[in-house]
Amino acid sequence: MVRLILASASPARLATLQAAGIDPTVLVTNVDEAAVLAAAVNAAPRLDPAGQVLALARAKAQAAARSAPSEAFILGCDSMAELDGEVLGKPSGPADAKRRIRRQAGRAVVLHTGHWLLGPVRPDAGPPGSNPGAARPRRGEGAASSTVVRFGQMSDAEIDAYVATGEPLRVAGAFTIDGLGGPFVEGVDGDHHGVVGLSLPTLRHLLARFGLSLVDLWRPGLL
Amino acid sequence: MVRLILASASPARLATLQAAGIDPTVLVTNVDEAAVLAAAVNAAPRLDPAGQVLALARAKAQAAARSAPSEAFILGCDSMAELDGEVLGKPSGPADAKRRIRRQAGRAVVLHTGHWLLGPVRPDAGPPGSNPGAARPRRGEGAASSTVVRFGQMSDAEIDAYVATGEPLRVAGAFTIDGLGGPFVEGVDGDHHGVVGLSLPTLRHLLARFGLSLVDLWRPGLL
Repeated sequence: MVRLILASASPARLATLQAAGIDPTVLVTNVDEAAVLAAAVNAAPRLDPAGQVLALARAKAQAAARSAPSEAFILGCDSMAELDGEVLGKPSGPADAKRRIRRQAGRAVVLHTGHWLLGPVRPDAGPPGSNPGAARPRRGEGAASSTVVRFGQMSDAEIDAYVATGEPLRVAGAFTIDGLGGPFVEGVDGDHHGVVGLSLPTLRHLLARFGLSLVDLWRPGLL
Repeated sequence: MVRLILASASPARLATLQAAGIDPTVLVTNVDEAAVLAAAVNAAPRLDPAGQVLALARAKAQAAARSAPSEAFILGCDSMAELDGEVLGKPSGPADAKRRIRRQAGRAVVLHTGHWLLGPVRPDAGPPGSNPGAARPRRGEGAASSTVVRFGQMSDAEIDAYVATGEPLRVAGAFTIDGLGGPFVEGVDGDHHGVVGLSLPTLRHLLARFGLSLVDLWRPGLL
């Protein structure tokens, strides 16, 4: 069995992997997302949202690599919503969430999720501890998934009730397609799991670049 | 709070409602699906798959109505997969599942789910027991959701491993988008929850015909 480290505190990402038969070890890192994003945009001023989530996913995976076991794979993810060319993270509070949901109702938002997969420490990396504090060299592969999410119309009473539950305050785009927000999403064009925060087919394609199948990550007993 | 009866034994349908904040009472009925389908196709020889799942959803809801509380709403659902114009239910066994998954790999399947929502017993229905054994009159509203599901390529080893888990044997179309099959679905065009077996936006639209919002069905504490 291949061991996977999930470099994310998101319960939705963990649940997505578990439903697909994978029990990762969660390793939450403390990445200064604003600094990573500023550096990425500075290096590439026209960096699109897919490039931005990819840069953040990479930073999270690399931060986790500092304390991850050498034989494990490490997955970093980051998600952003895009509306009218504007990139949207988590809402700042209930008022912001209501304003944004009202704006999204009856329209389409694109949900971008970046994935960065680091392989095991390379055989030529030298002995552990040869460069204390630094992550040892690993091969990295990345890909972004972008899914169009089409929202239904919502009444003010529905928006108020939904925001009062607190769910939309915790997520990029201010909606939960896998929770109380599900009935308000008419449909998607693309991968549903990418909207939740981790695109399973994208993870499958990244694993294939390492010569692995997703079933190699299944929990014991499934195979 | 509006009380909902789910006339289905499907754990995936129950989980879909629960994730959206609704705790229905499950009331499993014993509908002769082949007989219902034969009667529906006899009445309308060119009945398309959406019409077929709608007829079955209606039969399930009406069967549950015989023993459901008079004030409750009742939801019946039925799902079928369509490939090359052929309608596909659950596979007959592991060999059939492997054959079908091999056929679906790299292609698109349409998943049709029919929904039939019965309202409370009508005020003009007369006293209970006036017609023993028969369901008392309720208003019924129905709608089908159809979602295109695009599969990735799968190796024979992956197909064998997936079928060996038993998951694809239990579902129409021989795949589980919300389970171990998720990574093999590249994306959908339409409602993901309809593929799982219960389209939440469709339920929302049916409730609206009764003047209700989906939040009226939320479990106590959410509102």
